[in-house]
Amino acid sequence: MSEPGETRPLAIVCGGGKFPIEVARAAAAAGRTPFLVGISGAADPAIEAFAHVWLRIGQLGKLFSTLSDRGVADVALIGGLTRPELGDLRLDWGAIKRLPELALAFRGGDNHLLAGIAAIFEREGLNVVGAHEIAPRLLAPLGPIGARAPTPQAEADISMGAALIAALSPFDAGQGVVIAKGRVVAVEAAEGTDAMLARVAALRDARRLRLSGPAGVFVKAPKRGQDLRLDMPAIGPETVAAAAKARLQGVAVAAGAVLIAEREAVARAADASGLFVAGYAP
Amino acid sequence: MSEPGETRPLAIVCGGGKFPIEVARAAAAAGRTPFLVGISGAADPAIEAFAHVWLRIGQLGKLFSTLSDRGVADVALIGGLTRPELGDLRLDWGAIKRLPELALAFRGGDNHLLAGIAAIFEREGLNVVGAHEIAPRLLAPLGPIGARAPTPQAEADISMGAALIAALSPFDAGQGVVIAKGRVVAVEAAEGTDAMLARVAALRDARRLRLSGPAGVFVKAPKRGQDLRLDMPAIGPETVAAAAKARLQGVAVAAGAVLIAEREAVARAADASGLFVAGYAP
Repeated sequence: MSEPGETRPLAIVCGGGKFPIEVARAAAAAGRTPFLVGISGAADPAIEAFAHVWLRIGQLGKLFSTLSDRGVADVALIGGLTRPELGDLRLDWGAIKRLPELALAFRGGDNHLLAGIAAIFEREGLNVVGAHEIAPRLLAPLGPIGARAPTPQAEADISMGAALIAALSPFDAGQGVVIAKGRVVAVEAAEGTDAMLARVAALRDARRLRLSGPAGVFVKAPKRGQDLRLDMPAIGPETVAAAAKARLQGVAVAAGAVLIAEREAVARAADASGLFVAGYAP
Repeated sequence: MSEPGETRPLAIVCGGGKFPIEVARAAAAAGRTPFLVGISGAADPAIEAFAHVWLRIGQLGKLFSTLSDRGVADVALIGGLTRPELGDLRLDWGAIKRLPELALAFRGGDNHLLAGIAAIFEREGLNVVGAHEIAPRLLAPLGPIGARAPTPQAEADISMGAALIAALSPFDAGQGVVIAKGRVVAVEAAEGTDAMLARVAALRDARRLRLSGPAGVFVKAPKRGQDLRLDMPAIGPETVAAAAKARLQGVAVAAGAVLIAEREAVARAADASGLFVAGYAP
């Protein structure tokens, strides 16, 4: 596995959003400038500021030969991707050869799929690393990261949210829930965090969810047994904006197990909107 | 408790939707014409075909005196209500007297609230009965109610859905989930069944959820430990329509523990849309 001050060649397979770029910059700042593999139709064009290649999801063969040519040892998989159906992918020869393993990987939840993909990478002699290993300063700390801290009611809601996420773990569903005053308001599954928070906002606007004033907490944590190299939950400024629209009291994340993208912007957004953003002891 | 052929006066407190009317007609057909209490702003005007009174949610005192005047012994609470905040209700004297118990009831999930309300009724000497006790033919049977039956994949998804609902029970969240090919697509909480199924439809339309053809099952069951007199889950023709829009394979409900409103219409809608609707062994 990777060691402190490791300078083995690093690649990041980039899905969507700004987070892959942020991790790439953090890795470069730490002395490990990565090679970026942009997934067509997902990755941000900003990857082109780095040494990079664009590939389609199905080009597994070309991916492995590219990484091998560059002597890459460690690979991180960062960023969002809409989960495809295996049958929809145009596979190159390297993918077709691995079709049995790929088909098995696609039979289950997202954690199962990512674990299957990681195993395929490892069979190539690649070491799959997590964002938290190449950019540890992105990990959520314990305690508030802005000016506000959770109230006692919010603390109780956070505990309930954490317990709920743990209870959901065997089902490999989502990583986020919204709890308000001891009541489960929303549970995230395929729709994702943004859509879930938008739904809570809509429920409040439609007065179908009646709470006095800002109330409730969005809790995000990895599923128990989740491979943190592959799909570490993350929040960013847009999470704070969505939580503010939903009129929540704050956002709570499992300390050391959730990434905070653009931390300074998150803290500023939280303070401006009157929310807390805090890491809790998992 | 009520006995077979019971002719003690019966009242139904009616929330929204057609289901209270359906239960009232079924009870009348069985020889127990009920007195209907329509909740203002929720109950269907069709309650006026029966002996009835309209009341606001907060008029607990007037409710109990009305039932007492009519010699009502058994009360059923049927139909949907947007959960209010206690502080938003205009309470009459009978409610104000009972404020401590009401306040306690409002501290938790929906099951807790309904249990608290039922306890308040019981303290008045009223017997709270479930729709399944006054109209047993509304209960979901074991097996399909239309032409189609679940495929083996659907059966596996149903088992997973049932297990997930059971795991969620201690959190008093929702009663419905959507599972597709071993993957949790959606979990119902405060938004309700219709909104959850609409979300699944939107995910598929936006191709954010990519499944080949009709796939997935909507599973509905009571939470473990749920008081079935109070909030028995129910489905109706609109459930089938929403499941069809979400391009699911079918709807599965816990046999004997979920009510099917307008069963003939449900079966016709299922057959017309190509879905199965089936009760499974809980």
